Parts: sequence; C-alpha cells; structure tokens
Amino acid sequence: MTDRITDSVLYRHLWGTDEARAVLGEEGRLQGWLDVIAALARVQAEAGLIPEQAAREITEHAQAALIDLGYAAGQTRQSSHSMLGLIRALQAVLPEDARDYVYAGATVQDITDTGTALALRRIGGLAWRDLRRIEARLLELAVEHRDTAMPGRTHGQPGSPVTFGWKAASWADEIRRHLDRLREGAPRWLVGQLGGGTGSLVFYGDQGPAIRARFCAALGLADPGISWLTARDRGAEFTQLLALICGTLARIGGEVYELQRPEIGELREAVKDGTVGSITMPHKQNPEASEHLDTLARLARSSAAVMSEAVVQQHERDGRGWKAEWVAWPETCLLATAALKIAIGLTEGLIVDAEAMRRNLARHGGYQVSERALALLTPRLGPRVAQDRLQRALAGGRAAGRTSSQALVQDGLFSPAEASYLTAEPDTGSCQQMTDLITERAKLARAAEPQEWP
Amino acid sequence: MTDRITDSVLYRHLWGTDEARAVLGEEGRLQGWLDVIAALARVQAEAGLIPEQAAREITEHAQAALIDLGYAAGQTRQSSHSMLGLIRALQAVLPEDARDYVYAGATVQDITDTGTALALRRIGGLAWRDLRRIEARLLELAVEHRDTAMPGRTHGQPGSPVTFGWKAASWADEIRRHLDRLREGAPRWLVGQLGGGTGSLVFYGDQGPAIRARFCAALGLADPGISWLTARDRGAEFTQLLALICGTLARIGGEVYELQRPEIGELREAVKDGTVGSITMPHKQNPEASEHLDTLARLARSSAAVMSEAVVQQHERDGRGWKAEWVAWPETCLLATAALKIAIGLTEGLIVDAEAMRRNLARHGGYQVSERALALLTPRLGPRVAQDRLQRALAGGRAAGRTSSQALVQDGLFSPAEASYLTAEPDTGSCQQMTDLITERAKLARAAEPQEWP
Amino acid sequence: MTDRITDSVLYRHLWGTDEARAVLGEEGRLQGWLDVIAALARVQAEAGLIPEQAAREITEHAQAALIDLGYAAGQTRQSSHSMLGLIRALQAVLPEDARDYVYAGATVQDITDTGTALALRRIGGLAWRDLRRIEARLLELAVEHRDTAMPGRTHGQPGSPVTFGWKAASWADEIRRHLDRLREGAPRWLVGQLGGGTGSLVFYGDQGPAIRARFCAALGLADPGISWLTARDRGAEFTQLLALICGTLARIGGEVYELQRPEIGELREAVKDGTVGSITMPHKQNPEASEHLDTLARLARSSAAVMSEAVVQQHERDGRGWKAEWVAWPETCLLATAALKIAIGLTEGLIVDAEAMRRNLARHGGYQVSERALALLTPRLGPRVAQDRLQRALAGGRAAGRTSSQALVQDGLFSPAEASYLTAEPDTGSCQQMTDLITERAKLARAAEPQEWP
Amino acid sequence: MTDRITDSVLYRHLWGTDEARAVLGEEGRLQGWLDVIAALARVQAEAGLIPEQAAREITEHAQAALIDLGYAAGQTRQSSHSMLGLIRALQAVLPEDARDYVYAGATVQDITDTGTALALRRIGGLAWRDLRRIEARLLELAVEHRDTAMPGRTHGQPGSPVTFGWKAASWADEIRRHLDRLREGAPRWLVGQLGGGTGSLVFYGDQGPAIRARFCAALGLADPGISWLTARDRGAEFTQLLALICGTLARIGGEVYELQRPEIGELREAVKDGTVGSITMPHKQNPEASEHLDTLARLARSSAAVMSEAVVQQHERDGRGWKAEWVAWPETCLLATAALKIAIGLTEGLIVDAEAMRRNLARHGGYQVSERALALLTPRLGPRVAQDRLQRALAGGRAAGRTSSQALVQDGLFSPAEASYLTAEPDTGSCQQMTDLITERAKLARAAEPQEWP
Repeated sequence: MTDRITDSVLYRHLWGTDEARAVLGEEGRLQGWLDVIAALARVQAEAGLIPEQAAREITEHAQAALIDLGYAAGQTRQSSHSMLGLIRALQAVLPEDARDYVYAGATVQDITDTGTALALRRIGGLAWRDLRRIEARLLELAVEHRDTAMPGRTHGQPGSPVTFGWKAASWADEIRRHLDRLREGAPRWLVGQLGGGTGSLVFYGDQGPAIRARFCAALGLADPGISWLTARDRGAEFTQLLALICGTLARIGGEVYELQRPEIGELREAVKDGTVGSITMPHKQNPEASEHLDTLARLARSSAAVMSEAVVQQHERDGRGWKAEWVAWPETCLLATAALKIAIGLTEGLIVDAEAMRRNLARHGGYQVSERALALLTPRLGPRVAQDRLQRALAGGRAAGRTSSQALVQDGLFSPAEASYLTAEPDTGSCQQMTDLITERAKLARAAEPQEWP
Repeated sequence: MTDRITDSVLYRHLWGTDEARAVLGEEGRLQGWLDVIAALARVQAEAGLIPEQAAREITEHAQAALIDLGYAAGQTRQSSHSMLGLIRALQAVLPEDARDYVYAGATVQDITDTGTALALRRIGGLAWRDLRRIEARLLELAVEHRDTAMPGRTHGQPGSPVTFGWKAASWADEIRRHLDRLREGAPRWLVGQLGGGTGSLVFYGDQGPAIRARFCAALGLADPGISWLTARDRGAEFTQLLALICGTLARIGGEVYELQRPEIGELREAVKDGTVGSITMPHKQNPEASEHLDTLARLARSSAAVMSEAVVQQHERDGRGWKAEWVAWPETCLLATAALKIAIGLTEGLIVDAEAMRRNLARHGGYQVSERALALLTPRLGPRVAQDRLQRALAGGRAAGRTSSQALVQDGLFSPAEASYLTAEPDTGSCQQMTDLITERAKLARAAEPQEWP
Repeated sequence: MTDRITDSVLYRHLWGTDEARAVLGEEGRLQGWLDVIAALARVQAEAGLIPEQAAREITEHAQAALIDLGYAAGQTRQSSHSMLGLIRALQAVLPEDARDYVYAGATVQDITDTGTALALRRIGGLAWRDLRRIEARLLELAVEHRDTAMPGRTHGQPGSPVTFGWKAASWADEIRRHLDRLREGAPRWLVGQLGGGTGSLVFYGDQGPAIRARFCAALGLADPGISWLTARDRGAEFTQLLALICGTLARIGGEVYELQRPEIGELREAVKDGTVGSITMPHKQNPEASEHLDTLARLARSSAAVMSEAVVQQHERDGRGWKAEWVAWPETCLLATAALKIAIGLTEGLIVDAEAMRRNLARHGGYQVSERALALLTPRLGPRVAQDRLQRALAGGRAAGRTSSQALVQDGLFSPAEASYLTAEPDTGSCQQMTDLITERAKLARAAEPQEWP
Repeated sequence: MTDRITDSVLYRHLWGTDEARAVLGEEGRLQGWLDVIAALARVQAEAGLIPEQAAREITEHAQAALIDLGYAAGQTRQSSHSMLGLIRALQAVLPEDARDYVYAGATVQDITDTGTALALRRIGGLAWRDLRRIEARLLELAVEHRDTAMPGRTHGQPGSPVTFGWKAASWADEIRRHLDRLREGAPRWLVGQLGGGTGSLVFYGDQGPAIRARFCAALGLADPGISWLTARDRGAEFTQLLALICGTLARIGGEVYELQRPEIGELREAVKDGTVGSITMPHKQNPEASEHLDTLARLARSSAAVMSEAVVQQHERDGRGWKAEWVAWPETCLLATAALKIAIGLTEGLIVDAEAMRRNLARHGGYQVSERALALLTPRLGPRVAQDRLQRALAGGRAAGRTSSQALVQDGLFSPAEASYLTAEPDTGSCQQMTDLITERAKLARAAEPQEWP
C-alpha cells in the first residue's frame, strides 16, 4: 500500500498522469537509472576499461523488472548508500563474470542526474504535446467566440465589454510563451553528468572528457562541458517553468470557477456521466476540474520553490539540497502533468453560455457602457469635464435605479437616440482585432515548429 | 509499485516513519475515516435517526482491511466524488439492511477533518514522545559536557570559547519551547467537525449541536462550537509547528555537519556497521543523518507553507485550499516524524571529541582570548582605548605570526605572567551557569508533565 | 526619498500603519536600540563596571533625535559593522567622559535582539488591541445578523442556506484563536538577550547571569536563561502567527470581494467620499480594502517564510539567516498592522444587504432546499433511496426549468403543501444555535482578559 | 525618514544599489510613469485625439522633480486610486489648456506595466553588465588557478582533489547560463501595455491596435499583441531568473564562507581598510560579503515566489496579485542588483591561498587519494575486489593513524614506490581539460555578443 495520498489507489489520478508515473514512479525511476548504468558500461567497454562481454550482460540485465526490490531495499538501508542497493540487486541477477563491472568509477549523481535528464526529456515532451493541444483548443475557442461579447471584469466588478474569444486568445498567448520557454531551455536541460566522486573524472585518467562525451551521446544527451553536481540551476529553471505553466492553467481554471457561479453562469465545466457533485446537496454542479487546477498550482509552486532553494549548494556535492531535489523534482513534474491533463479536459469540454454573457451585459443597467461613453464625450467636453460629468451622471443614475441609458439622457450628456445607440450593442473595442492578431501569430508558430519536443 | 520516491521501497525510511505511515498511509487514512463514519452511525442511532442494528453493523464492518480498494477507486473515479467510492465499498461489505445508513447527512469534510483530528492526536503524540526523548538526550549531553570547552564560532569564525554542554543546553531549550507549543495548541487542534453540506447542521433539525457534541465526545475530541470547514488556521498552526521543529533539528544537524569536517573534527555521527559512505572514495564518512535533517526541514517548510496559504478560503467550502491540505498536511507530518527519528539516532549516537575541541581552541594562536582580554583591559584603560589597543595588538601579532599571548605582551598590554595566565585555560564565561539553569528548568518541566500527549 | 514602494509617500498607508512605523521605522528602530544601550549602561553602572555618571549621560543622550544619521551611516559603511556607526554617532553627542562606556562588552545581537523584543511588545500590543476590536465588531455582526439567511456556498456554488451572523461568528471564532495564540506566546517572545561575542557572557566574569537578569528586568523583559543568538524559533513563531492573522483577514476580505460582485450583491464595502473606483469606468465600485487584505496576506506569508528558514542557523552567530530576519521581521509586522487596520475599516463599514441575500436564496429555483428535503425524506425512504430519488427529481426539474418546489411535487416526493412549506422559508439549520454558542463563549473570554497585551 | 530597514540611511547599501534605486525608487518610479504618460500623450496627439500643444506641454512637464509629492500623496489617499494622485499633481503643474489631456483613456496598469517594462530594460541591462563582469573575473580565476590543486569536498568531507580554476569555471558556466536566459527572455519581457479599463482598447475606437503599436514603439518596447493585464508570466519569469542568479551568487559566497574558516583557510575575502569585524572579538575577520549573498538570495527567492503566485489572476484585472507585484517586483530587482555588486567585490578581491589548499590536501593522511587508487587497482583486481580491499585498507589505516600511503603499502595493495608516487602529487583528473573547455566556450560566447542588453 502506498502512504502518500498522491499515490493512493483512490486518488492517484488527481496528482499525476499514468504517462508521467511510468517515467517517474519506482519502476520508471529505476529503469532510467539502469539505462544510464548500462550506457556507462557500454562506453567503458568501448574504451577498453571493462570487458565487452560484461557490458553486454549488464545492458541485457539492466531491467527494472528483473530487480528484486526487497533485496535492493534491504541493501540500501544496510549500507545507507543511495545507489548501492540497486547495484547489488543488479549484480545479483548478473552472471558472475559481469558483476564486478557495474557502476565502475561512477558516483551516485552521475547516475541520478543523467537519469533525471532522461526523464526530463520525456516529461518535457509530454508538456510540449499537452501545451500545444491546449493551445489548439484555446485558439479554436478564440476563433469561435471572436465576437461573443461578455462583461470584462476588473476587481471582480463588471466593466467595459470584451469578447470571450479575446479572453481565450490571451490564455493561448500565455501558453505560447511557455512553449517558447520549453524550446529555449531544452539545450540547457538535456545534458548528461559524469564525473565520479568530486566530479574530476579522475577515475578515467586522460580519457575523462572523451568518455563523458560518448556517454552523453549514447543516451541522446548533450555533453555538459563540466561537472554540475552542485550547479543546480537547470532543474530549478525547469521546475519553475512547470510551476508557471500550472499557474497559467490555474488562471484558466479560476476563470471558469468564478464564471460558473450560477449568479453569473457564463462558463461551465462539462459534467461526465456518473459524477456526483454533492451527496447532501444533489442539485449542485461543482467546478471540480477548475478548482483542482488551483490546488495543483499551489503544490507545484511549493515544490519548485524547494528546487530554487537547492541552487545554493556547497563544494562538490551537497546532500542537503540534492536530496530535496529527489523529492521536489518529480513531484513538480507529476503535478504539472496532472494539471495539463485536467486542463485539456476542462478546455475541450468547456461550455460557453453566450446567452448568459449577453444577459449579464445588459444587467445592472448596462453601466459598463461608461468607458465608451467617455471616449465619445472626451472630444466634446475635454477629458476632465467628460469624466466628471459622466461620473456624476452614472453615480446619480445608479443611485436612482435608472439604466445607464436613462442616466446619460437625464444628465443631458447624450440625446435619447445617441444614448440608445450607445447602449444598444456592447462595444468590445479592439478585442476582435487583438484576437485575430494572436491567433494568426500562433498559427504561424505552430506551423513552423515540430510536434515533438525537443 | 509506488510512484513518489518518498514511498519508494528503497527510500521510504528517509521520508517517514513506520509509525506515522500506519496513521497516514492509505490504510491508516481509510481506517481513520471509517472510524469516524462508524462513530457517526452510533451517535445517529442513539439519537434515533438510524436503526441501532445498522449502527452496530456499520461499526463492525468499518475496517479498512475489509474494503475492496480497487472497487472504491473505481467508484471514486466514476463519481468524481472524494468519499463516495469509500462509502460504496463499505456498503458492499455491509448486510443489506445497514447499507442505507452509512454517512447519513454528512459531508466529506465531516469525515476527513474529523479523521485528520484523530490522526493529529497520534502524530502529535509521536512528536511529544520523540521531542522529550531528544530533550532528555540533549540534557544528558549538557550535563556530561558542562565543562567541555570548545571554540564558539560566529560567522563561521572561531571566537570566545563556549562549552559543548552549553550548546546542547541551547538545543534542549529550543526543544522545550516546542513542547510548550505542542501542549498549548492541543485544545485548539483536537476538535471534531460535523455540519453537513454547508456546515449548517440542517440535516439534524434541532438536534444538530447536541449530536455534534456527542459525535466529538465519542471520538475523544472536543466540540468545535461552530463548523470550521473554511476556518483552517488549526492545521496551518500545527504544520508550522512541525516545520519549526524540523528547523530546530536541522540546526542541530547543521552543527554536526560542519563540526564533522575533518579540518575541525569536534563532533561526529556514529556510523553503523555496513555503512558505505562512498564507493569511489571509500575513506569518507559522510554526516548523512545531519544533512538529511536539513533536507527534511526544507521540505517540511515547503509543505507547511501550502497549509498557511490554505487559510484563505472562500464561503463554506473551498476545494482549492482544502485539497492542497490533503497533500500538505500528511506530508508535513511524515517528514517531521522522519526528522524526529533521525534526530534521535543522531543525538544518541553523537561522538563528541573533547580533545579536538581543546586542540582547536589552541590553534591559530589562541586569538579567541580577545573578549576576555578586553574585559580585563576595560577597567584599566577604559573601553575605547582598551578596544583600540587590543585590536592593534592582535592584528599586528597575527600578521607577524605571533601567538595571542606573545602579541599581548609585545604590545605591553599584559605582563608575560598575566598573558600566560590569560591564555592558559579557555575562559568559557558563564556557559556553565547557563547550562545549569537550563537543565534545572527542563528537569522541573519534565517532572511536572505527562509522558503522553495531549 | 524612499526607494521601497512600501514606504512611498504616495502609498505608504497601504503597507504599514503610522503606529507600527513609529516602532519599526528608522527612528523607532534606532530609539529601540538606544534604549537597550542605555539600559545596559545603567545595569553596568549598578554592577560597578562603568561610572554612574557615564550611565546617566548615556541614558540622557540616547535619543534618536540627537543622532547625526548621516555620520552614523558613513561610519557604518566605513567599518562594515552593523552597530559601530550608531555607537560612534552616540559617542559624538556624549560628553567626553562618557563616550568610552557605550556598548561595553555587548555584541550587536544583544542590542538588536533585545530591541526586537521591545518592538515585539508594542507590535503584539497593537495586534491584540486590533484583533479584539475586529472580534467585537464581528460579534456585533453575528448578533445583528443571527437570523439573516443567505445562501451557503461550497465550491462557489450555492448550497444549503446559512445565516450571515453565523458566518461572522466563524470569523470571530478564528480571531479568538489568534488572541489565544498571542496570549500563550507572550512569555516565549518577550525575553531579552545579553551574551557578548559568542553568547558566553565572558565579558562579565562571574556576574554574567546576574547582570543579564537585571538588564532584562530593567527593560520589562523576561530573562532567557541562555543566549539565543542562533535559537530563532521565537521570531519565526511570532511572524507565522502574524501571517496566519493576515490569512484570516484575507479570508474575510475574500468573502466580501466575491459577495460584492453585482451579480451577487450580498456584501459591500463602505465607500468613503472622494473615492474614485475607476477613471475610465466611473460606474465601478471596487472592493479595494477586501482585495488588499489578500495582497497583504501573500506578502506576510512570504516574509514569515523567510523567518522560518532562518531557524536553521550555525554555531553561535550566523549572519545569513540573521540578516534576513532584519528585513523579514519588521516587514511582516508592518504588513500585519496594515491588514489589521484595513480589516477594522472593512468590518466596521461593512454593508450587509439582507434583501439581496434573501433574493439570492430564491433564485435558481430555490434548489438549495435539497439538504433539508433529504433530511425529511430519509426517515420515509431510507437514506439511499431518498438520495437517489431526490437527485433524479432535482436534476430533472432543473433541466426542465422547474422550481425546486415544482420538481419535488412532480416526482411525487412531496405533496404540494409540503413542498411549498419546505421551500417557503430557508432552513438555516443550527446556524443560530452555533452563533449563540460562539458569541457567548467569546463574551466570557473577553470579560476575563485584559484589554492590553501582554 | 524611511521605515523599511532596506532603505535605512545606515543600511541601504546592503539591500540595493544606487543605480537600481535610481530606477526603482520613488523618483525613478514616478519618472518612469511620467515618461509613459508623456509618450501616450504624444501618440494620442499624432492620432489627432488630443491637441499637439497639450502633448508637448505634458511631455515638458512630466518631470518627477516638478511633482509636489505631498499633494500627490494627499490626492492618492483621498481618492483611493493608485494613479489619480500623480495625475492631479501633474495637472497642477501643467498650463490650464493641457491639463485635461493627461492620461486620457488609460488605465493604471497601462502606465505601471509599461513603466515596469522600461524599468526592466534598465535592471536587465545592469544584470547583464554585472554578470558579464563577474563571468570575466571568474574566467580569470579559472585560467590563473587552472592547476591550483585543492581538496574536492562532498558532504563537507574532503574527497578526490580538484583545482580551484575548475571550481571557478563551474561558477562561470552557471553565470553563462544566466546570460543565455537573460538574452532569450528579453523579447518576452520588453513589451508595453495599453488597453484601458478591461484591456479592450475601446477608448480608441478602431485605432486601438495601431495606437498601441506606436505607443510601444515610442518607448522602445515591443507590441504585446494582446493586453496582458492578468497574464503575468513575464514578470514571474524575470524575477525567478533574478532569484536564480542570486542563488548562484550565494553558492559562490557559501564556498568562500566555508573555505574562509581558519581551520580550512583556502579562500578569503579581501578586507577593506577600516573594517571592524567584531568589537568584542577584534581578531576576527568575518566573511561578510559571502554571507550577505546568502541573505540576499533568501529574500530574493521569497519575493520571486510572490510573483509566481501572482500568475493566477482573475478576469481582466485582479488587484490581489497585481498589488503584490508592486512590492515584489522591485524588491527582487533591488536585492539582485545588491547581490551582483557584492559578488563583483567578492570575486574581484578574492584571496586564494594555494599554499593552504596544498597543505589541506596533505592533511589527514592524504586519504583523498582513494579514487585514484581505485582506478589503478580496478584493472588489476576487478572493481569489486579493488573496492573492498581498498576500503578495508584505508579504514584500517585511518583507525591506526597511518597515512594513506602507509595504509596502501601495509595491506599489500601497492609497493612503497607506487604508493609514494600515488600520493606524492594530487591527481586532479580532468579538471584542467574541463576548465579549458569552459573558458574557451565562454570566450567565444563573449566575443559574439553585445556588451549591452538587450
């Protein structure tokens, strides 16, 4: 049985995707490390440091499925060494003649940091794919609702109208920036690590850098140039990006959460069959995906912050920050993949109630007309007078329970015909133009880039 | 297989104790909830709301071991409801006539918040016990090393001598404050929760508060007076305390980490048989427990911060912060219990090298005599002149490679006899008196308090 | 000119109160330190360590207003010593014969930590006073609106009705717990610090502890028993409490923020004359105080987190965490006092629209009747059948655009008379009883405690 | 007088540079906003929206030095509007005919976000310049100390030797990655903002996007395409980068802090004349710059975390996160510039004691030879036997107080000649090759890039 609720049989789907778990879970983690150990053996064999046969056998047996986890665990605890349990468990399944050649000259971080880079490639790939899918959906919404007027809201209060397409375009544009960041960061992140004890490569004599280069290449990673056992900015940057991505998704979720209030009713999560919102209050439909995006963003920020703190390390290895990374790095990744998956469901199923948006624009006397009215009055009266008189007219009208149209006429600012025209149709300003600009820009970027990362 | 490395078969001992896992792991968590569900049924039966027989059967079958987790998981996912999976799985093992009476009128948080209070009682009890054990050990060290002189260090630089016992007393005193906090907080934390959908207790008609009171009493918890579904300061306070405790233990660990440097060598972790510090550098003895205390403190702070953020909740239930608590609360508890256990091992096995301490006091020319010399010169020369001349004498002596004793004589500040007396024996000021004061105070507190919490 | 926007002439009122600034600002901070320096001199004179006359003169001249700040600043920068600039500036205004006796045998933290304890006493006093005032107002609201029904809301969705008085009582109860924490923590926080270089009190020979005791007493502080130069849990605990308090106030603010949405309109901030919500959208009334409480809570949490991190310190002084406290401790205090002041304004001016609450209860077909309907159906049909049929009836009714009353009749669950009775008046369950319980409890606590802290 | 200690006359140099204060302080902030207001007026005049003459006068008078701050402050408080105070104060110094045309159609964030982008350009420029200067110095150190052997240290324990140049190269390489991030992020960050109330540009009729484009161009900023009033990833990314930079500098500082311990003595901060390390302990030389880098990194992380949290915003403006940015954004910038300046001083003055490094390598019996010995024994004995025997030999030798050389001979692993050769000269592995690789790579990058950012 698992202990962390994030891995609970009942709740695991909320805190990570199966795809990410396949990479970062016990088996995926060990397999990643075994892949690195096998690659190291092959490269050492090529360099004549260990027998070819041993490297072949190590490669063949370096399968998580073959490892006796209980034995590995026992040896880990007995030795208090992070990697020795796995090494001994691998040796236990190897033929006698290959056993000695496992993990020769390596240090734990050579294996785990390189393993993390391999995992990062897969997690980054999932993020790239899912972000592009979300972007595609948001662009669809932007196009579809290019002209769907709704109240803009600032400080929670309705203001000048916007369009829902424009809102979706703003989300898509933020996602696009995350895609840019993912692309730009890849060369920094996808590097291997080989250095031995203090990172000096002393085990390999003169061949150190050459062996490291081949080792990285064998795993499809770039060569770092220098050991980075305590240079931890890479992981911090990556997880901070994931936390930012979660933040963006939580922003989208928050919008749905608020606009799904029945008093507003402009957006709504799709509800799948069988969902029970509340047992005691069976009429309720809760914005569960939306609110969970916020939850995930909080936790992702918290984990990413641990990674930032871990940038400050001492000397050539520093277990304090490094072991914190052991937990925080995969945690951030798991949370982010869950957020991406949930955001896909949310955006793809999103129900947009254009009628409610329209209705809400008309509510409360249509006072969101004010900015447009100000624009029209400004050339007539000058900005200050326009502002003062408009403010007085609207405040007075509101207090008296008039519609904005009545208020504008009452105060002599507009003729009834003007006022009626002014308030008849929401003026969404340049929302449509901005939406077009963003969707066009995104379309070009999408066409120019690969579907796979990196 | 688990996914979180914190539950990994290989590494789980680093991130939580078995005792805490028994409370907070999948089985313990479900059992806690089932205990609450059973107590609710019994209280409802007493009040005539459900049949006595049903309550008896619910109580009898509310065993985590009976629950088909796979079924519960499937129902959870299908319904997207956090508790319905468990309810249906419990119903599945109940006789037909009792099934309907499970969880009547409750809301999820009635079960989970009350379950958390039950878990808190056990985790708090573990913390109380372990803190007292650590305190006891630190008090032993304080007494034993009351007179063991060592360099005090500020900004990493040796200064006026202190004693190791005094250092241990400072640690013990900090632990004592945590014990005080634990004791004071208990009445705030150990309360049940019952309220139904929005916390209004509407399901129970006029009997609401009375039923809640009996429900809480049945579980050994206090009655909260009012629903606290979105009043989350309690959990935040408790986890912040755990994070502070981890901080204190990390302070102790940090001291060992630094003083175990072979260049200093004053403290050392005990090494158990079989430990392998480093494969590539077999001579090394790493302060693993010490550094892990720092790692745990980072993670605990990070989780506790999530709890603080969750104090800001909306309306009568707010899934955003609440679900973050689902993860952060047990996480902080697990990390803290691991830290306590490791700190017990560290302090109980701690090797104090009084000889090295003595040697280090004599190193570098014994310049840490300065504060005492200043005290002696002040009445003779006035503080400012004393300070100026001493500073000049010592700086000059140091630059010239003299011992502090030579320097003080050279500059005519002291006679050779005085200087020799001054530097012969480290003056640890009032360290011993302070140590006595703290150990005495702690002894009284320990005698006056129960061994069990709360 | 100031640089931090928090001290900006234009915006300073948002980030701290004048009262707190008087304690924590440049002048208050220096005065606090000077008070400590003067007390030290007097105690040293009593002990015969320095001339009585010098102590009198130091006491007389230790006035921030007399200090040449520019000179102090220059000396601080030149010496790179945190306290020497102030010492020299004080010496510059002292008669020749007293100059030498300033700060004899002290270390910087002796002055600053003791100064912080003095400041804490005043900030804690402000918090106590303001929390009690807020509590009083919330209790008034609780009593006044004991029976004011409004929609309860979970996950942002209306559910079973509650009363606004009950909501206010929940806030008051949370404030009460903060008052308890403030009271309990006082003995831990209000302690002085005297120890010299490494805290060993070596400067004072055998008199160390006695002088420290008199020094603390002279300032109205408790004696710590042992130096706490690197035992920093006290400050962390205090600031975490302030951050929790800010969280509670942000919870109240968030409730107003959301319920002030014109689509809901149940609560509203009072608007003072001259307020301009928006220049471009003059009709708007923004919940500015409410949202600012959230802003302050974020910043306070962030500062308090720095304090928690600073618990992990090394040896006998550790500038890394300590200097972070220099910034984070007063920052948290300033933010918290601002939050308290704003919360007073918000709660005392709060406009409760009972009519809107009533209207909202009736909106959307009155579906929040469900929990009560369930309670009535449960004994008739058994919980499960009751739940299933109710859920079907309400979902069907909702989809068909019926009111809840119609839906309940349509499905044969209730007679028209029953349904009409059921939905006629919101059933707020035990909200009133809980409100009475809390207000009564608070009243007793208030009567039993002093108005001043500690 | 200022209130925040970060702006204290005595301590301000610790928490921000004069250059950054000129940008971010009260005057710089207001000037930035006034520059934006003036540019807006000019663009509006070009578009025929306001008179040319008014735009000229606004431009001429938009000088922070002309603004009556007290008046602005009073108006800000009276109106509770963040920008109206400044507007009215500007109007007060304008000729009558221009007054009305200030800030027409703008919203607060149009001014402040664009002002922030202008400030970011300057702060980013400072960071670029200082990072390059630090990199240059680190590369010098790398070259100069390419062959300076010193103990590598892992977990605080000496291990296989490295060179100090290699350590400096690792720092330089991390700085280089920050330069890459700064370069890549520039196009995302240097964008203006214009949108009016909800960002729809409704005030400008059809001309919205065109006017925004000219407005951005006039200020040397890119056009954002769409309003980003609540799309806040840009600022979060920038401040996270600054926090990472501070982390790197704290890593360098931490290394100096630890290696300056007199027990180690390998590195040392330069001490400027007049510095007083400790009054009571005048012999001490504290690593003040080094430790302050850690302090700054903590605070910068804390501020940057506030920015990340602020990514989750609601609707079209959300004062909660936005106002938190008001504080956190400049705070992070100020702290980072202080860190950069201090790091310049630290690295440029750094004293490297190659002799102490050499001495330390020889201390403790030279046991750091182990990894090299392992490399030599591996081909002879196979890795496992080599490891086992070496571990036994070294552990035994250490326990018996032998040097490593004696231990290796005693156990028959090496001949006396071999052992003597092995331990005679530290083998720093491929440190030199890696150092060359990094310095060469950096040299090329430096040559190819501009000295100014962006």
